[in-house]
Amino acid sequence: MLQLIGKSIIGFARGASNGGAFHGVEPSTGAELEPAYFSATAEEVDAAAQLAKNAFASYSRVPGKDKAALLRKIAENIEQLGDALVTRATQETGLPAMRIKTESARTCYQLRLFAALAEEGSWIDARIDRADPNRTPLRKPDVRSIWRPLGPVVVFCASNFPLAFSVAGGDTASALAAGNPVIVKAHHAHPGTAELVGMAVSDAVRSCDLPAGVFSLIYGPGSEVGVQLVKHPLIKAGGFTGSRAGGQALMKVAAARPEPIPFYAEMSSVNPVFILPSALHARTEEIARGLHGSVTLGAGQFCTNPGMVFIPDAGSEELIERLRELMAATSSFTMLTPAISSAYRRGTGALQQNSGVETIAHVKSEAGNCSAGAALLVSDAESFLKDATLSAEVFGPSTLLIKYSNRDDLLKIARSLEGQLTATIHASEEELMSCDELIPILETKAGRLVFNGFPTGVEVGHAMVHGGPFPATSDGRSTSVGTRAALRFVRPVCYQDFADSALPEELKEGNPLGIWRMVDGEMTKE
Amino acid sequence: MLQLIGKSIIGFARGASNGGAFHGVEPSTGAELEPAYFSATAEEVDAAAQLAKNAFASYSRVPGKDKAALLRKIAENIEQLGDALVTRATQETGLPAMRIKTESARTCYQLRLFAALAEEGSWIDARIDRADPNRTPLRKPDVRSIWRPLGPVVVFCASNFPLAFSVAGGDTASALAAGNPVIVKAHHAHPGTAELVGMAVSDAVRSCDLPAGVFSLIYGPGSEVGVQLVKHPLIKAGGFTGSRAGGQALMKVAAARPEPIPFYAEMSSVNPVFILPSALHARTEEIARGLHGSVTLGAGQFCTNPGMVFIPDAGSEELIERLRELMAATSSFTMLTPAISSAYRRGTGALQQNSGVETIAHVKSEAGNCSAGAALLVSDAESFLKDATLSAEVFGPSTLLIKYSNRDDLLKIARSLEGQLTATIHASEEELMSCDELIPILETKAGRLVFNGFPTGVEVGHAMVHGGPFPATSDGRSTSVGTRAALRFVRPVCYQDFADSALPEELKEGNPLGIWRMVDGEMTKE
Repeated sequence: MLQLIGKSIIGFARGASNGGAFHGVEPSTGAELEPAYFSATAEEVDAAAQLAKNAFASYSRVPGKDKAALLRKIAENIEQLGDALVTRATQETGLPAMRIKTESARTCYQLRLFAALAEEGSWIDARIDRADPNRTPLRKPDVRSIWRPLGPVVVFCASNFPLAFSVAGGDTASALAAGNPVIVKAHHAHPGTAELVGMAVSDAVRSCDLPAGVFSLIYGPGSEVGVQLVKHPLIKAGGFTGSRAGGQALMKVAAARPEPIPFYAEMSSVNPVFILPSALHARTEEIARGLHGSVTLGAGQFCTNPGMVFIPDAGSEELIERLRELMAATSSFTMLTPAISSAYRRGTGALQQNSGVETIAHVKSEAGNCSAGAALLVSDAESFLKDATLSAEVFGPSTLLIKYSNRDDLLKIARSLEGQLTATIHASEEELMSCDELIPILETKAGRLVFNGFPTGVEVGHAMVHGGPFPATSDGRSTSVGTRAALRFVRPVCYQDFADSALPEELKEGNPLGIWRMVDGEMTKE
Repeated sequence: MLQLIGKSIIGFARGASNGGAFHGVEPSTGAELEPAYFSATAEEVDAAAQLAKNAFASYSRVPGKDKAALLRKIAENIEQLGDALVTRATQETGLPAMRIKTESARTCYQLRLFAALAEEGSWIDARIDRADPNRTPLRKPDVRSIWRPLGPVVVFCASNFPLAFSVAGGDTASALAAGNPVIVKAHHAHPGTAELVGMAVSDAVRSCDLPAGVFSLIYGPGSEVGVQLVKHPLIKAGGFTGSRAGGQALMKVAAARPEPIPFYAEMSSVNPVFILPSALHARTEEIARGLHGSVTLGAGQFCTNPGMVFIPDAGSEELIERLRELMAATSSFTMLTPAISSAYRRGTGALQQNSGVETIAHVKSEAGNCSAGAALLVSDAESFLKDATLSAEVFGPSTLLIKYSNRDDLLKIARSLEGQLTATIHASEEELMSCDELIPILETKAGRLVFNGFPTGVEVGHAMVHGGPFPATSDGRSTSVGTRAALRFVRPVCYQDFADSALPEELKEGNPLGIWRMVDGEMTKE
């Protein structure tokens, strides 16, 4: 088994142990876990950036199949961590072993999906506009273009997905698939999990004969190391999953650089659920069970946790009662960190003290400072529309039901929402067609619209959009899940009148890679 | 002929005449042109934004063929302006009639290219990942996604392209093709040209039965109206072509909004040209003529004007002498505005006073405060590398030759460059292959690499990239010319488990529009 040593991974070397030290903590007991972790020094951060810059020169030009081999090797190495990874991750996060196992499988599936994307190659959007020497008054030149990688990318790990949105998660997989070296900033809440996965990635880079700087993993529990990375002139983009405050602070740093860089922060979302009358009446039990499951899954620690549910005023008693029963019967949870669980207590406390909100169920927390009990609250459209605090994210196993009396209320509520990752509609098909203003409004508010389902569970595929207008993310033009995520880390480059021998393989006349290309406006594999 | 009245176009209405007044000016004489133009008031700007927001609800959902009809009608209306447009534009800009005619043709070609894109429809990147009800442990949902428009876009006109990068230029055409209403901020240097084209656009919107707010044209000569537009909460993106100072100021405004928005500024570029020894010796005369033409075209008032040319120290005497002859024999030019010509005089003056620079030719300016004489200056690699002022943009008909003594110098210079729109290499094919480090460096510096040609002349097509890393543009991930420009104004939206009837046409099971789609990862028109 791999030995944890508590030091940053700087290319193929390990960091020093003269920075500040911190420990992973077992959320259920508060016990510190060995070993101590050492923050990277400013010199180490700079060394990682220099290595990444050097690696970019070659890694940005390796064939898709070699990037695919790296991504597959990373997945293999993670799988080989086996129980060691499950044990450490459950210790550090309090998440159950089964969750860690499925998240690990999801992470490896994701790495292999990006491997297939890089290997197949058509994602690069090759376009060829052929020359016309006879055009007047001026000869038409030969112009060819593809996406090219941006340069070293810094990735910030999320606390709530120790694998799928952490060291070898979607940001890292998509940045590597697109040809960018990655420097990961570990999350202080699961440093050992990060180290295990970090070693798996670093070993894969080495065994694929790629340059050391393709991957580094940096420790630093506060904001200092992260800010240094985002400010570093050799860093060309960033990816982040976390809090709104943290994301916005780093967005500002990225925008204020002498050379501003793209910074993709996935920050906060309350994921509205709209339940229309005939769906409510036809499927009360199904909706109650589905909602309860979605709200309490993983102690509600999902970006897609449904935090506000709009229900018809008339005839919703049965749904509320059923939800009350389910929530009240839910055991208390262990959250990821003391900070997250105290924020959850503050958030639910503020709602409970709000005069426009009634508490339907609130499970008592158990002892331990990461404990959290599920909460069900109810309010009405009028209160919701006049009090912005009711639409703030409460990260954890609670949800706020909001009663509306008519369709106008519902549309007014939809228009009032901030940007979201998801918006969900429960309706009969006829009801949906007759409420044809709702979808156009929600399209402007969220990246993913869910019909008669629940927002938790983000499928990893080609069509997925896990993104949304600000403040759900820093940049609503992007997704952090699915193969479109690779497009965050590229820019178009075109080659005019180039000799065939000097063109990238993807653009050579004979299409040696056999990829889909747009030639004079037509898609072809010729 | 259309009557100019000097007022903003707010949807189908015209602005008031109580704002500050200014006039178009004939650059060659300094004479004021009638009528007076009135700045929009804050209320008018707000009214245009509200109209655009209202129009978005329907315009964002019109079929591609209707957007195509609008774009084609705009082109037709511009063509019908005929001589009136040529006369006014030449008066306001000092550009020759032939240039205005070819720019007008380019503008109409561009509108029709985006019309074809919108009508054909595959640009929308439809992706379908089908459901798998039998997947364990969890059913796989049906997920489908497309690009959706962002919302009202503000477009800032450029001074140097009164048609192709102004009211109905590339930013407007691409934003409209993608389904976004547009509010154009006119450039004060050609208000009458803007009004003529603005009426052509507004009439097209009306005759296509589209809502008034699809298009507005706003006057305001200083920065106040522009800043108000970029700050307006209903504006969701911006496009700009102009100076680095102006672009950076607006970038900051866009990033500092409570809801930051994408802002695409195309700002400054010096467009390095690298001439390798065997190309120099084989084609001295061709390179001299080509460079002279590219430097002086349109009085050098192009973003792609080659402002620095790296030539071998050994054997470049003949090229320098030939360029000196050509430049010295060049008549003086009338530039677009007094501000541009005085900036040109300042820029060339500073270079001439630089101890590392020698003046080879400098044509005397004629009388008139928009006059400018072509200038040819020479320096060396050592001076260039130690003095950043030598790589600053001088907008106008001048260029700086920089002698290098060896390949290391050349690579060092390439690495030292800021982001550029273009980089050009003159070399034999063998020379290019043997200098295989140069292309990878230049790919990170510029959006378009030109081989054995000249950077002026930006082809409008599918493969073109007119963009580049900061500070060439605010966002190197984009292009402002070519069909990829439409991707600046969209975001992905996905639909999970939607009823077929509720899906956008592009995503319905039967592919009613017959577009290319990615279905379970495979491109198909089925």
